[in-house]
Amino acid sequence: MRLNLAPEVATITGSAQGEQVFEFLAQDLLSKARCARLTTAHGVIDTPAFMPVGTQGSVKGVSPRELHALNAQIILGNTYHLFVRPGLDVIKHFGGLHKFMNWNGPILTDSGGYQIFSLAKLRKITENGVEFQNHIDGARALISPEIAMEIQAALGGDIVMALDECVPYPCEYDYAAQSAEMTTRWAKRCKGAQEVILSEVEGSRGTTSKLSQRDSSTALRSARNDTFARQLLFGIVQGGTFADLRKQSAQAIVELDFDGYAIGGVSVGEPEEEMMRAVESAEPFLPKDKPRYAMGLGTPPQLLQMIARGIDMFDCVLPTRLARNGTAFTDTGTLNLKNAEFARDKRPIEENCVCHACREFSRGYIRHLVKAEEILGLRLITLHNLHFYLELMNRARAEIERGTFDQFRKTFVADYKTRDAMMIE
Amino acid sequence: MRLNLAPEVATITGSAQGEQVFEFLAQDLLSKARCARLTTAHGVIDTPAFMPVGTQGSVKGVSPRELHALNAQIILGNTYHLFVRPGLDVIKHFGGLHKFMNWNGPILTDSGGYQIFSLAKLRKITENGVEFQNHIDGARALISPEIAMEIQAALGGDIVMALDECVPYPCEYDYAAQSAEMTTRWAKRCKGAQEVILSEVEGSRGTTSKLSQRDSSTALRSARNDTFARQLLFGIVQGGTFADLRKQSAQAIVELDFDGYAIGGVSVGEPEEEMMRAVESAEPFLPKDKPRYAMGLGTPPQLLQMIARGIDMFDCVLPTRLARNGTAFTDTGTLNLKNAEFARDKRPIEENCVCHACREFSRGYIRHLVKAEEILGLRLITLHNLHFYLELMNRARAEIERGTFDQFRKTFVADYKTRDAMMIE
Repeated sequence: MRLNLAPEVATITGSAQGEQVFEFLAQDLLSKARCARLTTAHGVIDTPAFMPVGTQGSVKGVSPRELHALNAQIILGNTYHLFVRPGLDVIKHFGGLHKFMNWNGPILTDSGGYQIFSLAKLRKITENGVEFQNHIDGARALISPEIAMEIQAALGGDIVMALDECVPYPCEYDYAAQSAEMTTRWAKRCKGAQEVILSEVEGSRGTTSKLSQRDSSTALRSARNDTFARQLLFGIVQGGTFADLRKQSAQAIVELDFDGYAIGGVSVGEPEEEMMRAVESAEPFLPKDKPRYAMGLGTPPQLLQMIARGIDMFDCVLPTRLARNGTAFTDTGTLNLKNAEFARDKRPIEENCVCHACREFSRGYIRHLVKAEEILGLRLITLHNLHFYLELMNRARAEIERGTFDQFRKTFVADYKTRDAMMIE
Repeated sequence: MRLNLAPEVATITGSAQGEQVFEFLAQDLLSKARCARLTTAHGVIDTPAFMPVGTQGSVKGVSPRELHALNAQIILGNTYHLFVRPGLDVIKHFGGLHKFMNWNGPILTDSGGYQIFSLAKLRKITENGVEFQNHIDGARALISPEIAMEIQAALGGDIVMALDECVPYPCEYDYAAQSAEMTTRWAKRCKGAQEVILSEVEGSRGTTSKLSQRDSSTALRSARNDTFARQLLFGIVQGGTFADLRKQSAQAIVELDFDGYAIGGVSVGEPEEEMMRAVESAEPFLPKDKPRYAMGLGTPPQLLQMIARGIDMFDCVLPTRLARNGTAFTDTGTLNLKNAEFARDKRPIEENCVCHACREFSRGYIRHLVKAEEILGLRLITLHNLHFYLELMNRARAEIERGTFDQFRKTFVADYKTRDAMMIE
């Protein structure tokens, strides 16, 4: 099963203490696709992995128990939303996000930056950080790299993200260049801030070791208490749609030595080819022995194309957001279940799908629920769509291990018809 | 366990074929409360029973699988809503309401009358029936007693209701009197219409027996196909808030010999004392060996008071509707989880409650979900509230069987504080 394991990336990576943080399992020979296993404080994540988005401490419409039944191995929490409501003091009071929402699997929290840029009012970006008024009650706040790390430490996610500026599309070259450089400076400050936080936790536990040498953060991770145990920090590559900026950003971020690397500033409205190019421009400069995460995308074919380009982790609101609009994913494209054609359709959303919705309900019934605005309708489509995305990752991993991923990807992409509904995003 | 079984009601009732449709188990000696078992085509219902309301072919926010987990033994479907959307032809196409919504337990369908009076536009009541324009697309339709029976036969509920006129509160004596008399005439037509439908089903099955003698409907029930098997027909007592009209209505409806008797026109805005009196005025004239159903109520104390007055079955939207407003039921009254006092509350909605919400989530987290308008919040409160209502019936049955119901009722009612939130209805 591991015949395709490429020797040059077969090394086991991890901390100075010999922890196997990112364990390589298989490398596709016809593409950059790979299988691995990422170990976090709350469990193991098989990659390529899809992370359902739990914006406000809940994956919309789905309970933690249902997420486990779907075999979701990790979910994403949005720092900005949680910071605004219920607020950090409340989540701290409950002992962190895991306990607050009763999800005992891994959580990745973003830095909050992206939502400040997309949702908050009167935002002002300076070298220091981002000042903004939140979109709920208009309260003013500042998130700096240091504050982003403190907030994420309090949330207690297993993977935390450096604060970055996500530039819009289109974006002038000069702005993208300056922004990417600032993102690098912010990334450095995030890393420094995490070490300070770690040392404070260490201090509060009665030890006094001073942080200085490389890998000290990993050493401290093991010493942290439950809430903060082994929080992995990912840096984010920016650079807009400019190949040379993507390269420079990747090199600069990698130089700072993170636990993993995200490619940000993609899926922000640019054409798909631009998005692919942005990833292709950065990827060669990311170390093969660390996880790579393409933020905020995408459609099922896009995920397979990204996997072929060496990406390991994804998050996307499409499966949950489109479900709320009555749109379901299938191997041959999306179905808008509001359409009259489904009113008398006794078939499940997708034949042979083993999700709860497909095993128990017809398209016709689900269409009725959606038309009647019954919550069960969006719940059932949400369960199906999340199952579809998670199962797509299962299939990708199996095909990579079998050495047949490239053919699988080509066939899937060819059979998948993108319909207008996909553009709702 | 059956020490309190009163000999005079210990007879086993049923059809001419010896079916045990309504089997008596216990009679409280200090009140009219009783325990029984009602057998329907899709299963047995232990009474006193609460029926969650599945207005549009879905108990709002809850899946059929969750209803089974809650040990709901019967649900209610609203004929008017289903008639308007998705429409009868669609539900027929799927083989009836059970198959359409994938609920294999008993269903009671109402006649549609109540919703025509409360929701439809331009309704016109004549001796023939009710003409109306529906509230969704304004299409005109007529529901007569005969049509109400045909629609309910097509829906395939286990218990169907006669068409009645539910008079508003307040209502003049003369109007209430004339209306109750028309409801009786409609009830007679409903019974006749059901026999015609049964004979048509019988005819379509290749037999030719003519319907004439009493109990023939029960004989035919056994001959019907799966969809229509043994549909029980309940008559409805009306009469507004007038004791003599309630008595006359009960006597006239009972004279027609139904499988069970509902008390309608209660919980329509009248003071609680009036509601109790309406039930007390009708109940003595209902046969003890048939189920009694008080329609569309009520609060937890009201249910226990009704049980003490000899009522066996209830349906009410309170547990699901209040849940969507953030209100949870407890033994000591309702909690509005939107209140700031719950923001840091680590306790479950109710201590010792074994529902999914209480076993896994805190008041503080559920409050956050409700405030953030996350669907999971109303789902969790809905599950708790339905569990509370269903468990209240379990407790009532156990107390009746133990001979301690009356003390249980008094203690519960005294401890239960009705707060403003209860008045949202």
